[in-house]
Amino acid sequence: MFYFIIDILGTIAFAISGVLVAMDKRLDAFGVFIIAFVTAVGGGTLRDLLIGIKPVGWLNAPMHLLIIVITVLLAIIFVKQLKYVRKSLFLFDTIGIGLYTMVGVEKGLAADLPPVMCIALGTITACFGGVIRDILCNEIPVIFRKEIYATVCILGGLVYFLLIQFPIQNTIAYSMAIVTIIIMRILAVRFKISLPNIYREKT
Amino acid sequence: MFYFIIDILGTIAFAISGVLVAMDKRLDAFGVFIIAFVTAVGGGTLRDLLIGIKPVGWLNAPMHLLIIVITVLLAIIFVKQLKYVRKSLFLFDTIGIGLYTMVGVEKGLAADLPPVMCIALGTITACFGGVIRDILCNEIPVIFRKEIYATVCILGGLVYFLLIQFPIQNTIAYSMAIVTIIIMRILAVRFKISLPNIYREKT
Amino acid sequence: MFYFIIDILGTIAFAISGVLVAMDKRLDAFGVFIIAFVTAVGGGTLRDLLIGIKPVGWLNAPMHLLIIVITVLLAIIFVKQLKYVRKSLFLFDTIGIGLYTMVGVEKGLAADLPPVMCIALGTITACFGGVIRDILCNEIPVIFRKEIYATVCILGGLVYFLLIQFPIQNTIAYSMAIVTIIIMRILAVRFKISLPNIYREKT
Repeated sequence: MFYFIIDILGTIAFAISGVLVAMDKRLDAFGVFIIAFVTAVGGGTLRDLLIGIKPVGWLNAPMHLLIIVITVLLAIIFVKQLKYVRKSLFLFDTIGIGLYTMVGVEKGLAADLPPVMCIALGTITACFGGVIRDILCNEIPVIFRKEIYATVCILGGLVYFLLIQFPIQNTIAYSMAIVTIIIMRILAVRFKISLPNIYREKT
Repeated sequence: MFYFIIDILGTIAFAISGVLVAMDKRLDAFGVFIIAFVTAVGGGTLRDLLIGIKPVGWLNAPMHLLIIVITVLLAIIFVKQLKYVRKSLFLFDTIGIGLYTMVGVEKGLAADLPPVMCIALGTITACFGGVIRDILCNEIPVIFRKEIYATVCILGGLVYFLLIQFPIQNTIAYSMAIVTIIIMRILAVRFKISLPNIYREKT
Repeated sequence: MFYFIIDILGTIAFAISGVLVAMDKRLDAFGVFIIAFVTAVGGGTLRDLLIGIKPVGWLNAPMHLLIIVITVLLAIIFVKQLKYVRKSLFLFDTIGIGLYTMVGVEKGLAADLPPVMCIALGTITACFGGVIRDILCNEIPVIFRKEIYATVCILGGLVYFLLIQFPIQNTIAYSMAIVTIIIMRILAVRFKISLPNIYREKT
């Protein structure tokens, strides 16, 4: 139940981020909906395709579709008011990223893949909806330029695989990895931590 | 046989739309061919990937490949004359969209997916070749900005699922859905119907 | 063993080409890594998805991932020195293209696909990593505009299917196709051969 609520809140936060990018590009209602949908389910879809899970998850999740439709309608109507809930959105988004990373890690484990690939799949689940969103909107994905949440997902995955080396329950390791991702992301945004600059000249 | 002819005409119309966009971007012959090919088969390919049909359809359809190769060659040679057949092209394109929508719906039904997802797959089949075409040409997909044919596909799918609630033959419902899509699209283009504007300020 | 070394050298050359494009766009370290990774494994991934091989190859190749990580780190550090090894890189890249084309052809044969589709899959394996790289970097793929290596891959595939009509060993036909691709590409680059211009007006 708890898991279910996080999933819904994360889906809503992801969909809203899609609506904002799409409206910025002045897409029509259909375009806004597709971008919101892709942002919310794109990462999981790419993961399912890579692993070979068929059909991809969302084809059997009409409720997610419904939630995204409602979210898009409300977001379009109340777009001006969205700024007042920005903090809540950031929180849902961050919780969603933590959860989705571990969902991806789990799917990788279920497919008997090596740990490093499970972490990759977790990161793809959490981050590549945003990548597809940006590609469809004709932008270089923001995650490749300045956002750091991919790094946070990778670290969270590492924490999980470290913890399960110790005699602790799987669900505890799982939850601690999610919490690690959430805390690290909040700290990174608060203290404006980004990846070290790899360019010598000034940008 | 009838079905077969529509499929070929639709493929040709889709491929030509790809050629026109690609030549507008001044791609070389290989680029023009790939864009034409992707426009023609991209929607069905994405659908097959999402459902998990393997291999994707076109890998077993060398004839489609041949038709697209010939279409591209002719379209490059007679590009200046293409404007004289614009109305025929629009008609083939529209018939193709109607047919492909229902092909996608059928594949979804064959995979035991819920009606709303079958409609989604129908729309993807008919419309996402054009989306991939625009992405490869570095444009925001035209269907997200002003074209309305996705909406028409969704409505056509709805008509089908409404009709099969009644005691009528499946093939009749199927054909009526296709005809609905064709008529709605022609009307929409003729009367310049578009989705309601979702932006308050002027664009 | 020989095959293995070529594969590694090709992966390194592809990854470096990704690093160069990504650094040109001033992506951050994570972005540079993803672009390098996608350039190296994207073509094979797309091929595996289209055929329905699951999971896609790289999910079971942690060594490739490691090699790409090391390549990216070294390439970022020694980016200024890369120009001194440009000729070696071109050679590795060309050998990689030859090899990957035939790997793709083989996977197509193993999936019982018609020769023309095997050639298509070979070309996709060799060339579409670069296509995805360019899309993620918000560029029209260079291969659609001026590079000719797709054509070279197609010709190499044709050579293979011609040769196996004759009573010669499969491995010989395989190797000769690879050598054909390598020689043709070197000649094409040396003599600046490109596809015939399809536009009447000057560009």
